Amino acid sequence: MSATLRLALLLLAVAVCQGYQSNDIDEEDELVYEPSKYGSLWPLPQKVRVSEVSFKLPSASFKIVDAKESSAGPSCSLLQNAYRRYYEYMFGSVRKPGYVKSRAAGPSEISELQVWITSADSECDSYPSLTSDESCEFKNINSTTISDFPRFAHRGILLDTSRHFLPIKVILANLEAMAMNKFNVFHWHIVDDPSFPYLSRTFPQLSQQGAYHPYTHVYTPADVKMIIEFARLRGIRVIPEFDTPGHTQSWGKGQKDLLTPCYSGTTPSGTFGPVNPILNTTYSFMRQLFSEISSVFPDAYVHLGGDEVDFSCWRSNPDIQNFMEQQGFGQDYSKLESFYIQKLLDIVTTTQKGYMIWQEVFDNGVKLKPDTVVHVWMGNRVEEEMQNVTEAGYTTILSSPWYLDYISYGQDWQKYYKVEPLSFKGTEAQKKLVIGGEACLWGEYVDATNLTPRLWPRASAVAERLWSAKEVTDISDAYSRLSMHRCRLVERGIPAEPLFTSFCPHEYKGV
Amino acid sequence: MSATLRLALLLLAVAVCQGYQSNDIDEEDELVYEPSKYGSLWPLPQKVRVSEVSFKLPSASFKIVDAKESSAGPSCSLLQNAYRRYYEYMFGSVRKPGYVKSRAAGPSEISELQVWITSADSECDSYPSLTSDESCEFKNINSTTISDFPRFAHRGILLDTSRHFLPIKVILANLEAMAMNKFNVFHWHIVDDPSFPYLSRTFPQLSQQGAYHPYTHVYTPADVKMIIEFARLRGIRVIPEFDTPGHTQSWGKGQKDLLTPCYSGTTPSGTFGPVNPILNTTYSFMRQLFSEISSVFPDAYVHLGGDEVDFSCWRSNPDIQNFMEQQGFGQDYSKLESFYIQKLLDIVTTTQKGYMIWQEVFDNGVKLKPDTVVHVWMGNRVEEEMQNVTEAGYTTILSSPWYLDYISYGQDWQKYYKVEPLSFKGTEAQKKLVIGGEACLWGEYVDATNLTPRLWPRASAVAERLWSAKEVTDISDAYSRLSMHRCRLVERGIPAEPLFTSFCPHEYKGV
Repeated sequence: MSATLRLALLLLAVAVCQGYQSNDIDEEDELVYEPSKYGSLWPLPQKVRVSEVSFKLPSASFKIVDAKESSAGPSCSLLQNAYRRYYEYMFGSVRKPGYVKSRAAGPSEISELQVWITSADSECDSYPSLTSDESCEFKNINSTTISDFPRFAHRGILLDTSRHFLPIKVILANLEAMAMNKFNVFHWHIVDDPSFPYLSRTFPQLSQQGAYHPYTHVYTPADVKMIIEFARLRGIRVIPEFDTPGHTQSWGKGQKDLLTPCYSGTTPSGTFGPVNPILNTTYSFMRQLFSEISSVFPDAYVHLGGDEVDFSCWRSNPDIQNFMEQQGFGQDYSKLESFYIQKLLDIVTTTQKGYMIWQEVFDNGVKLKPDTVVHVWMGNRVEEEMQNVTEAGYTTILSSPWYLDYISYGQDWQKYYKVEPLSFKGTEAQKKLVIGGEACLWGEYVDATNLTPRLWPRASAVAERLWSAKEVTDISDAYSRLSMHRCRLVERGIPAEPLFTSFCPHEYKGV
Repeated sequence: MSATLRLALLLLAVAVCQGYQSNDIDEEDELVYEPSKYGSLWPLPQKVRVSEVSFKLPSASFKIVDAKESSAGPSCSLLQNAYRRYYEYMFGSVRKPGYVKSRAAGPSEISELQVWITSADSECDSYPSLTSDESCEFKNINSTTISDFPRFAHRGILLDTSRHFLPIKVILANLEAMAMNKFNVFHWHIVDDPSFPYLSRTFPQLSQQGAYHPYTHVYTPADVKMIIEFARLRGIRVIPEFDTPGHTQSWGKGQKDLLTPCYSGTTPSGTFGPVNPILNTTYSFMRQLFSEISSVFPDAYVHLGGDEVDFSCWRSNPDIQNFMEQQGFGQDYSKLESFYIQKLLDIVTTTQKGYMIWQEVFDNGVKLKPDTVVHVWMGNRVEEEMQNVTEAGYTTILSSPWYLDYISYGQDWQKYYKVEPLSFKGTEAQKKLVIGGEACLWGEYVDATNLTPRLWPRASAVAERLWSAKEVTDISDAYSRLSMHRCRLVERGIPAEPLFTSFCPHEYKGV
């Protein structure tokens, strides 16, 4: 007997279509909710018809193979990697002894999984994109049928590698966990005020001076390449954020004259403010830097930040004051900010990239390309903002309710789970402009020691909200599935923290 | 040149006397407070005179040896283990190449550390106790002199292995971290409602039926023995808590008739309440169980719990109602609770153990042995409770302000740090009865995946409050030392989470 998995497109392939049931959860325990009829499926697929009939998967002879109709070529390394990964998830990394290798399959055994890819890219060399088709269908596995596709196309996690440096190993582990939760965007907030760990080929002094340490706390070009490829193999886009003109203190250490000198009265105070928007050198620097970034990061989008610009330093600087006067900006420094951003957007447009920006850039009335993604993050008036952004015709993603760096005692995953991204007032056309959301884990209080358990399974709640149908809102059913899902993450080596008093059949093996 | 370390007593020995300075913390970073003149010392010793003169410690030839005056015998394995541990902390686990082994020490080198023990126990076989002398003096190390002793004798961490099972590895790692923070009591809240992981030789069915899993989620006698010995080598007492009569749901699974059957009207509802206090079989069971416990756990104290007894089930049961009438208790079920506890205390007294109990037992007026330790945990009227307990002449430990399972966004270590345990009204004699405190990490939301970073360095704040002088309260100085101390924990393999935006010279190597 064989099972067929048909994928509309190569990307994410097997990675997004999985789910098995663990039977070891103690059903007697009064603290555990009722088991879900969907077992441990997470995020819940769009259509599932569960059957009680079960088949054996013989580890010694079981195969995952390309279906004969599949468009995938024999050297599609993405699929080869996925087959290995899922074989190991199913059977562990070593074949169990006791099976005869070429034994014929018994009547209740599934001997192989045929993977039928319908993408045109037979060599699987392309990168995932916003328009990648992530739908898939499962047929004849335990007589259960699954037909699946995501509700939103952009389902991201923001990690911040500036406030604390995150070793490669931590990033890779979290990409792995993202794949297990059908996240498809790694928003890499790579640099910020505290440190500049991105090793630029064009401006190596940026990390030499601006990283916490020039050798041990940087991402080399090889590191970045590896992270992008690791992500690609799991259907995950990598969107880097180079946030300007604020959040750039660390940039100033390696790039003279980039930041605005702040004044105390009539003399420079020795401290610096945002990027200096009145110098030509600033724009020639940005042109070179973003030219490099656009070739290092293959995704069609780059995130340009633009949030939380503090005007006090600009205000103190006499040269800036003169410039404001010349330009007729009066005392409205948001006009100066827009002036800078507008020039930056034009520069980035020449690199053939689309851009994402934090909501302030839109709020300040900067002229944006039609394909701009406006990132809504502020906690107040969220629905009003979503309404305004979509009314103006821009695509948008939501993060306001999903700042996972904020912690509190208890089951806060429920709060993230209950969010409905389309609850704002607007037309159907406006709703369609909401392409997804991102869970943000800002780095003030997390590093390699605690990031992974703080992110998972809290981000899993966001994953289901962004993937599954709008109507999937039963907290009790979610609790049951998510408990099992988190144990599955733990069994696969991800230290996902517990939802509540409970146990996993296989507890985490680390410390 | 040699350095001498004189210890008043063997226990804790080298383990509690250490501290080195890392110079890699970025002093330019505006987010980092001023460095402390005490470097990374944590908890701060009672008396330190710092010198700027520094000496080299040559890893190839450096020795830690018994001073000739030392009372420690040649087979004192506690010291041998401590020497190895500290050698590895100083130089890493392998000798670095490039040094000539028998090279004579240069003028600015320290060739050996002489450890002078003044304890009578030359074989170091004894267990730490409440009265262990933990004082020590350092002479001639970098010309810095340290004279040290703890402010409080009981400095504990409570871990809960019932709500989530904690693998041995996690417990050992946290004992290691405790030693690095001069904690000297592991309060092992080993069983509770959700599970009974203690494998009893006398009543093996308790864990067979009551553990999350009878093989993978239990502590065998060998496990318990290893944990106690691992703790002993680090000067840490292990005080087990077997909490009754409430918090015993898991006990009922393996021990028929131990719990009170609850009634719904005139018929048993099928659910059970606290331990049944009216049956003789209850007390014969407790006699056998605590007889075993008293021999398995060498410490002079056992914690008997006694907190949060819910009376509703007792009230529903007609047999209990009759018993109440017979005894003339009226409707005062706290009298029934006291009746039970009194009998239990008498049983435990015959095992030659002292006992600790949660504050309710004292509050209910149960007659206690003079050496009883009353454990104050409730959040309301803490000072009043401390006053009452000490007025009644009992020794007490404080936990109310240190429930580390409660989390919030930001630097909550400061809140723990600012507590002054002796701030209640009372005589000097009353203050002396406060023998210390415990940081409690209840298990609802922590297991192997997140326990260690959640506990450290937040518990380190409690460690300094309980060890150092009352006057050590400078938050800014503490921030600087604690930041470096947490990096030291990380370098030694403990995933202690960051205080705030920062970096460590050696980031955590795990995920």
